Amino acid sequence: MGLKHMATPYTIDMKVRDYECDMQARVNNAVYQNYLEHCRHEFLLSRNLSFAEITRRGINLVVTRAELDYKAPLTSGDLFVVSLEIERVSKLRFAFKQEIHRKGDNRLILQATIIATGVNDRGRPELPEEIISLLES
Amino acid sequence: MGLKHMATPYTIDMKVRDYECDMQARVNNAVYQNYLEHCRHEFLLSRNLSFAEITRRGINLVVTRAELDYKAPLTSGDLFVVSLEIERVSKLRFAFKQEIHRKGDNRLILQATIIATGVNDRGRPELPEEIISLLES
Amino acid sequence: MGLKHMATPYTIDMKVRDYECDMQARVNNAVYQNYLEHCRHEFLLSRNLSFAEITRRGINLVVTRAELDYKAPLTSGDLFVVSLEIERVSKLRFAFKQEIHRKGDNRLILQATIIATGVNDRGRPELPEEIISLLES
Amino acid sequence: MGLKHMATPYTIDMKVRDYECDMQARVNNAVYQNYLEHCRHEFLLSRNLSFAEITRRGINLVVTRAELDYKAPLTSGDLFVVSLEIERVSKLRFAFKQEIHRKGDNRLILQATIIATGVNDRGRPELPEEIISLLES
Repeated sequence: MGLKHMATPYTIDMKVRDYECDMQARVNNAVYQNYLEHCRHEFLLSRNLSFAEITRRGINLVVTRAELDYKAPLTSGDLFVVSLEIERVSKLRFAFKQEIHRKGDNRLILQATIIATGVNDRGRPELPEEIISLLES
Repeated sequence: MGLKHMATPYTIDMKVRDYECDMQARVNNAVYQNYLEHCRHEFLLSRNLSFAEITRRGINLVVTRAELDYKAPLTSGDLFVVSLEIERVSKLRFAFKQEIHRKGDNRLILQATIIATGVNDRGRPELPEEIISLLES
Repeated sequence: MGLKHMATPYTIDMKVRDYECDMQARVNNAVYQNYLEHCRHEFLLSRNLSFAEITRRGINLVVTRAELDYKAPLTSGDLFVVSLEIERVSKLRFAFKQEIHRKGDNRLILQATIIATGVNDRGRPELPEEIISLLES
Repeated sequence: MGLKHMATPYTIDMKVRDYECDMQARVNNAVYQNYLEHCRHEFLLSRNLSFAEITRRGINLVVTRAELDYKAPLTSGDLFVVSLEIERVSKLRFAFKQEIHRKGDNRLILQATIIATGVNDRGRPELPEEIISLLES
């Protein structure tokens, strides 16, 4: 199956919060997954899809695999951009290609591939119609 | 000692991130302390004081008491404003009066008083000069 | 209304995890609320009450006020005990008196009073029968 | 370079805390990285190596890549085991092979490979002697 690319990546601007830094005074590794998730959910909202609403309907959008390449650390006060491109990788699975760049010098901080799918409340794979439309558009 | 009030509260705009919500689908109680801390550190930055820089100099700004009144919950997608007023309460201690209001309906979400002080690397109470100037201004 | 005290506080043993420490290399203020919540939920479980199960039934147990006195910091590697006593403070509200002590020297780290109540899915105050029984026992 | 395997994986027992669950009532994806990090740091401690102490000496042990395969979710109340094997992958880089299994049914929850290295306070790759000894033993 041919992968479909978005013409332009979706992006959000964020800023490091001090409580996200650990004793190394850098953003803790796990926190980058928070940033990536927030970007994905904001992307869905920008397409009129609410993660919370989909969850209430009994469909859990879940991550099945995450690959994260940490290139450089973010630290207190850093402004950064999280970007996202979405690709369909199979009938029920899609990939988010995500990057984090620091503002100012545009340094690459993190590169990630997040594979996701949907599971209904009987534990069966299921993608909401709107997600399928989104992937096919 | 007379308390000094700021003419206008300092405010920052924030938005709930889905990972901050717990199984009740509302922002977890502990997360509000994150919001309040972020507002305090942004306030310091707006006065050219960096929490990270003060920490590197061996002075720990610490919270000694927090009072939090939870008035209503924040949930997925909510936009909100965190506000802050600072008051000196003794030679070495100061109080942040903080509130969180939801945008749109301006509903009061949380009211808090956070008492803070400084401790140097020998464990002794000490406030950096710049904080004292800030409190006296 | 007379307050009822438990004969002996309920306690759990915990250990600081490094990701809970911030750039001061101490446990971040907000994290103590996580510790306190975990102790409350473990206490409920010890009484055969599951917070998750109560939530699924449409009743949200919520904190309305938290008072936290930070006495000394926890840091990397510290072992500590979180304790809890429960008191009824009105028909629908109860108070958790909680403390955190460091193991080894038994130093008092944190003292807290957490006021909680229940809200049903129509937004009305409601306490599950089992919680009322617990408070009356 | 031949990879060296530990005779037996290092393991720690943990339990889900309710605040680690998100609105899906499952442990949030990012939290598993917290679990894995805690296991790695406990492993170092078991070898008399303190992550905090190494950090204070100016050496940052950092993750350069994380691969996480999410096999099944953890939820409220679950007990689980986090395991770890360490392998040297180059002069200055090592890999942690980590797994999470739910207790009771021993179900595989997560499989991960975490690549790590050390960076000194001049930003140069450097591994502490003790880590090198550990990798060679």
